[in-house]
Amino acid sequence: MNAPDFPPLLLPAIEPIADASLEARLRHKIAHKTKPLGALGRLEDLALQLGLVQQSDTITLREPQMVVFAADHGIAAEGVSAYPQAVTVQMVGNMLAGGAAVNVFARQHGFALRVVDAGVAAELAPHPQLLPRKIAHGTRNSRHEAAMTAAQARAALQAGMDIVGQLPGNVVAFGEMGIANTSAAALLFARLAGVGIDDATGRGTGLDDAQLAHKRRVLADVLACHAGATDPLAALAALGGFEIAMMAGAMLQAASERRVVLVDGFIAGAAALVARSLVPAAQDYMVFCHRGDEHGHRLLLAHLKASPLLDLGLRLGEGTGALLAWPLLQSAANFLGEMASFESAGVSGKEGA
Amino acid sequence: MNAPDFPPLLLPAIEPIADASLEARLRHKIAHKTKPLGALGRLEDLALQLGLVQQSDTITLREPQMVVFAADHGIAAEGVSAYPQAVTVQMVGNMLAGGAAVNVFARQHGFALRVVDAGVAAELAPHPQLLPRKIAHGTRNSRHEAAMTAAQARAALQAGMDIVGQLPGNVVAFGEMGIANTSAAALLFARLAGVGIDDATGRGTGLDDAQLAHKRRVLADVLACHAGATDPLAALAALGGFEIAMMAGAMLQAASERRVVLVDGFIAGAAALVARSLVPAAQDYMVFCHRGDEHGHRLLLAHLKASPLLDLGLRLGEGTGALLAWPLLQSAANFLGEMASFESAGVSGKEGA
Repeated sequence: MNAPDFPPLLLPAIEPIADASLEARLRHKIAHKTKPLGALGRLEDLALQLGLVQQSDTITLREPQMVVFAADHGIAAEGVSAYPQAVTVQMVGNMLAGGAAVNVFARQHGFALRVVDAGVAAELAPHPQLLPRKIAHGTRNSRHEAAMTAAQARAALQAGMDIVGQLPGNVVAFGEMGIANTSAAALLFARLAGVGIDDATGRGTGLDDAQLAHKRRVLADVLACHAGATDPLAALAALGGFEIAMMAGAMLQAASERRVVLVDGFIAGAAALVARSLVPAAQDYMVFCHRGDEHGHRLLLAHLKASPLLDLGLRLGEGTGALLAWPLLQSAANFLGEMASFESAGVSGKEGA
Repeated sequence: MNAPDFPPLLLPAIEPIADASLEARLRHKIAHKTKPLGALGRLEDLALQLGLVQQSDTITLREPQMVVFAADHGIAAEGVSAYPQAVTVQMVGNMLAGGAAVNVFARQHGFALRVVDAGVAAELAPHPQLLPRKIAHGTRNSRHEAAMTAAQARAALQAGMDIVGQLPGNVVAFGEMGIANTSAAALLFARLAGVGIDDATGRGTGLDDAQLAHKRRVLADVLACHAGATDPLAALAALGGFEIAMMAGAMLQAASERRVVLVDGFIAGAAALVARSLVPAAQDYMVFCHRGDEHGHRLLLAHLKASPLLDLGLRLGEGTGALLAWPLLQSAANFLGEMASFESAGVSGKEGA
């Protein structure tokens, strides 16, 4: 990396959200709501995080954006997915036509939806909701060569930053579509977190036992082939995907603008891991929305010390888990803003407290 | 029970939701949506249940109602709660003034909210959202005598049926307020499910270790005092609370009208246990909304073989968990109704499938 023909990558500065004085004010406000101490459980932690992100003791969630990053993967040629590569472009078409799960849940919750062509292996016709940022027609097959060049990895990160910089609102949800991208996510997780590839690898969209064993052998080969790609940018280039790289850049930009970052499933989680490997404070802005059925996802969340909001056995991606969790963020904002306090409501506190 | 001065209690007839032909149609419809098989996890089970409840392969959720049943408990005199009994009436006042957590979440999700005085130990001023169905000024202390008479238990069940019979819509969420009602819930759970009282008993709104040990001793005494109260109606009268009895009746009525029954936390769960002990098919209509922090709640859900939708460490009651889960029911209805199928969207299925 940093070969003479590339200027150093300029990553956005991200401020940690820690603020002892504001945290004390938020904790006091939450503790004095008319409920037993801590009785709103995870919603209380969420209100605290959102308040710190917004540097305020009230939370305002505006114009939430759903961005789905789509790309193809050279590793798909190794038979690591239950679905043919053509499904990526077909599903992008389905999303632009409004028929995918992410469309349904984005409509339900009032998210503006954009689909980014980060590197789909087909030409896509223009569409008002499609952002054409194709880096290439899919990555190369990482079993034989780096998935992308260093220049492509940087271009993808930069495109992600640019995309978020143009979006309104203060919340961005991140989802993806890309046949074989659980493989790229597992590879990045294994390399960046030091987890064994068998643990990081799961059934994706539905592999049987033999197919899973094959996927694990292929991914072990890939890791061995790129043993030197250990720093985050080198690992991203050697093992990653265009949608993952672009999402990581987009997450960094969102955090640098103090937007709330809604992280969907395993692949978005891998992008989050890349992002916080590049700028650790990025994680302060992330809300992990669900724990998926993919085996590696549970381990990834544990590695990030993240407690996701939902655990519904989802394994769809697209951003669906992020959208399903969204009402809980609104609830956190609402209880903080609207609930009465013990003093204002004339309700007694704990006996002897 | 059934003493000569009481006519037999007339419980509403409840049809099981099983329908093999409709189930096959729903499973086919869900399987052909543009997503990997099963990829929407628990939402798919939920869509199936709701379709069977509504006897249709589309789901329509109309005018959802939140009903909070409030009452006081004689057992509170034994020091089994962290809060003084006066908090029950204070919190009812807070709900009628719009300042409690249940108000915030009911507004967020468009639920009409009613508070039922099932037996608060105070006179309550009339209020448009208050349904005055007081059975008595709190139950008696079950450590010394039956919490209610057989006539009171029947009257409470009947009042619950009547209340739901007057409500619009096809979804009813059930919540409660009543200082010491985790004790009544634990007693009913222990007796009706055969679980040890120590396992059924938790910290309620926030007992410390010594207080928890005291609560367990008191509740063990209560169970010993009413060793003969083993059938559901006798157990309800000896150990229960007016809000639990009324809620159980209301759940039965809702199920008999094929409404969706949203079950909130531990106390609503105990009412659900009473209801399905009286009419087993009632459980077909129940959606268990969250797994609370109260120890007995986890065991109760396991006993009912129920997988709740949320697990957010809530321990507030009021119906808050039911309201927080509500958008997931809407999502289940929406994906079933709005997602494209593989055929209509031109998306390929699994390789070789």
